[in-house]
Amino acid sequence: MLFMVEMTVRIPHSADPQAVDKLKADEKAFSQQLQREGKWRHLWRVVGQYANVSIFDVKDNDELHTLLTSLPLYPYMEMKVTPLAQHGSAIAQN
Amino acid sequence: MLFMVEMTVRIPHSADPQAVDKLKADEKAFSQQLQREGKWRHLWRVVGQYANVSIFDVKDNDELHTLLTSLPLYPYMEMKVTPLAQHGSAIAQN
Amino acid sequence: MLFMVEMTVRIPHSADPQAVDKLKADEKAFSQQLQREGKWRHLWRVVGQYANVSIFDVKDNDELHTLLTSLPLYPYMEMKVTPLAQHGSAIAQN
Amino acid sequence: MLFMVEMTVRIPHSADPQAVDKLKADEKAFSQQLQREGKWRHLWRVVGQYANVSIFDVKDNDELHTLLTSLPLYPYMEMKVTPLAQHGSAIAQN
Amino acid sequence: MLFMVEMTVRIPHSADPQAVDKLKADEKAFSQQLQREGKWRHLWRVVGQYANVSIFDVKDNDELHTLLTSLPLYPYMEMKVTPLAQHGSAIAQN
Amino acid sequence: MLFMVEMTVRIPHSADPQAVDKLKADEKAFSQQLQREGKWRHLWRVVGQYANVSIFDVKDNDELHTLLTSLPLYPYMEMKVTPLAQHGSAIAQN
Amino acid sequence: MLFMVEMTVRIPHSADPQAVDKLKADEKAFSQQLQREGKWRHLWRVVGQYANVSIFDVKDNDELHTLLTSLPLYPYMEMKVTPLAQHGSAIAQN
Amino acid sequence: MLFMVEMTVRIPHSADPQAVDKLKADEKAFSQQLQREGKWRHLWRVVGQYANVSIFDVKDNDELHTLLTSLPLYPYMEMKVTPLAQHGSAIAQN
Amino acid sequence: MLFMVEMTVRIPHSADPQAVDKLKADEKAFSQQLQREGKWRHLWRVVGQYANVSIFDVKDNDELHTLLTSLPLYPYMEMKVTPLAQHGSAIAQN
Amino acid sequence: MLFMVEMTVRIPHSADPQAVDKLKADEKAFSQQLQREGKWRHLWRVVGQYANVSIFDVKDNDELHTLLTSLPLYPYMEMKVTPLAQHGSAIAQN
Repeated sequence: MLFMVEMTVRIPHSADPQAVDKLKADEKAFSQQLQREGKWRHLWRVVGQYANVSIFDVKDNDELHTLLTSLPLYPYMEMKVTPLAQHGSAIAQN
Repeated sequence: MLFMVEMTVRIPHSADPQAVDKLKADEKAFSQQLQREGKWRHLWRVVGQYANVSIFDVKDNDELHTLLTSLPLYPYMEMKVTPLAQHGSAIAQN
Repeated sequence: MLFMVEMTVRIPHSADPQAVDKLKADEKAFSQQLQREGKWRHLWRVVGQYANVSIFDVKDNDELHTLLTSLPLYPYMEMKVTPLAQHGSAIAQN
Repeated sequence: MLFMVEMTVRIPHSADPQAVDKLKADEKAFSQQLQREGKWRHLWRVVGQYANVSIFDVKDNDELHTLLTSLPLYPYMEMKVTPLAQHGSAIAQN
Repeated sequence: MLFMVEMTVRIPHSADPQAVDKLKADEKAFSQQLQREGKWRHLWRVVGQYANVSIFDVKDNDELHTLLTSLPLYPYMEMKVTPLAQHGSAIAQN
Repeated sequence: MLFMVEMTVRIPHSADPQAVDKLKADEKAFSQQLQREGKWRHLWRVVGQYANVSIFDVKDNDELHTLLTSLPLYPYMEMKVTPLAQHGSAIAQN
Repeated sequence: MLFMVEMTVRIPHSADPQAVDKLKADEKAFSQQLQREGKWRHLWRVVGQYANVSIFDVKDNDELHTLLTSLPLYPYMEMKVTPLAQHGSAIAQN
Repeated sequence: MLFMVEMTVRIPHSADPQAVDKLKADEKAFSQQLQREGKWRHLWRVVGQYANVSIFDVKDNDELHTLLTSLPLYPYMEMKVTPLAQHGSAIAQN
Repeated sequence: MLFMVEMTVRIPHSADPQAVDKLKADEKAFSQQLQREGKWRHLWRVVGQYANVSIFDVKDNDELHTLLTSLPLYPYMEMKVTPLAQHGSAIAQN
Repeated sequence: MLFMVEMTVRIPHSADPQAVDKLKADEKAFSQQLQREGKWRHLWRVVGQYANVSIFDVKDNDELHTLLTSLPLYPYMEMKVTPLAQHGSAIAQN
């Protein structure tokens, strides 16, 4: 079951740079693990923004909530979640 | 080069049903041709809306504009276009 | 799996009153059937508005989209869909 | 008498973690007491957000205001309150 | 129990003037009856707008919804409803 | 001459609690003095918010500005001011 | 007593051109009469818009409401009214 | 050439009171000098706000930008600039 | 003196196609004449929209207003006008 | 391939003035280098704002993202990116 998630990251200027670097490295590792597992199906950068457009493939709403709130950068993220369905004109199955 | 395009369709209640059916059939055929050519890479329905989230793969802005304005339902669509770049944590290339 | 759906109905003043009455009666019958089946779990009126707040219990996004677009008044509705998860402090299971 | 209350929690990054943990535990206990008393009838998590959708059943506006402002996390909450009425198509009484 | 209701009237330019005059006369009569009964406690005009700010005193949400949707001009009104409580610094009781 | 004033109070979490308590006590005293003088004609709490809806009766815009900016909590308030006129259907004079 | 009024005119494309010309001529004549009387103190065109910024000098809210709703183009205008006070740094009196 | 400039001042609560007083005194002096020179043609206070509505008369866009960014309180101001033209119904020249 | 003007065209579906074609041809001719005169310095299409971003070079606000309201498609355009100044880091003069 | 980029700079009042001056000098140097290379084709100041309107000419979305995120002031900028295409009425090629 697919969801579009639009994430915008806002790290305060006062944050400790080393702690932020650690969070970003953890975020990257966790994100890539979820991509390899097929749960984070697509990940694109929004041009000019510290933001991404992502497609998640999960079994239900609870799994999606658990994944998103487990992201290391979650406390600094603003999220918009859009549930997606099969489109009648799509040649691929969701 | 990828772009996210969010399309919302608003057909007036006064429109002629047969003309609308013809437009929708043409839209579907054209959309599937573009999908098969790889230019309309993804097409998802937004739950509860007459709207979709799409990913286009085009060579430049002019090609994207030409494709979008060629859609049979274009006169009834509201569009939001977001340019996408390669994300540093993505395991796939755009 | 639960979703909150907020529906606002906007019927044009020019609509045929008899056709509208028929649509409303069909909407009521279909809504009550879905309530009895447990898919439309809650239905509340928003005070002062031709609008409701609803909770749907469906197996996935596709089922929700199919249900919502099957509503007789769907062509006149504006919808906002919010996916819901289990809350850690709730004493009841979703 | 029912009200939908949408609560979003925004705790500043600079807050003391222990004090926050204490507030969250108090919030959970108070919330569950109100749920058992039937005043906080439903509590759902919004997917991807530190936010909930709640249904309160109170005798009047003053009781609702007293309950909401008594929540331990109230100083960090943004609230949207929507009064609800009986819907003519609902098969259950409010 | 008090509610602030902000009503904005939008009558289409194509409406039949005589029918509109009839609706306005009915609206005035019904409004004054509710004012005399104490249910429509205050009624003020917003300067420069076809809009008002009103205070209703009702026994519950259902009564308010019934009153508002009974207004002759209701089909042409946009409404915003705000529940009010006793203010701790007010020298009068609500 | 009547004005609706909607006040929302936002006191930073970092403010000194004793100084805030003093401001609130001063605000209450000043507010009640203005109510007794008939200048602050109504004062209602917005349910669930640190906000109020107020009706002021002043001789002109300058008096209203002077009163509002004299409120002890003014530096922490966001205000929306709406000028009101006599409504043609009101049974009471403003 | 001064008010800024921002007026935007929206005449439907379907309106009868002769009736519109008549309304515009009446509007101009009435506007110039109010300017000569000193009630409509300033009138400026917003560049690129069928809109103006105006300053009215009236004795109270009721007079302003009466003037604005007497404008021949009033049924086609959207208005924003902002009450103004004497500024402490202004070298002229309002 | 006229421009409407709407200025809102937001001075952080943490600012040094003496430095702020100095800035306000400088702002007042500079503002009055520009008023006497005819460049800052009107200055009105918005009721209930730390904000003003101003009319500037400058020879071009560059002069306006230079004036606005020279204001002592500029770093704490949010500005909205609206270019104005001669209105066809105005009895005075801009 | 430069201004950015963002124009969005909204032609009603009910408009006569021949009249619209005539307006578009006139618009193109007039636009190209203004471009050749140097007054309409740049004209770009916004991707996916019936909209453009334009840069005008005029001697004052009145000239800009006259030009914009002379556009054949002006009655169907929504416009946003932004005055521009010389940027301190630009290597070219405006 | 052209893009409009609208940049707004928001430097916190608490930032170190010397560090900010260094950033601004670096920003200016980098911006002028990009202008000379033809990648930052236009740069205009928005009147009254610490903001600019820019036109970039890049080979694709990735190059634009790399350029924008390389700006020394990027961490303090809010950006809006609009892809542009050739306009059918433009006398110049993009």
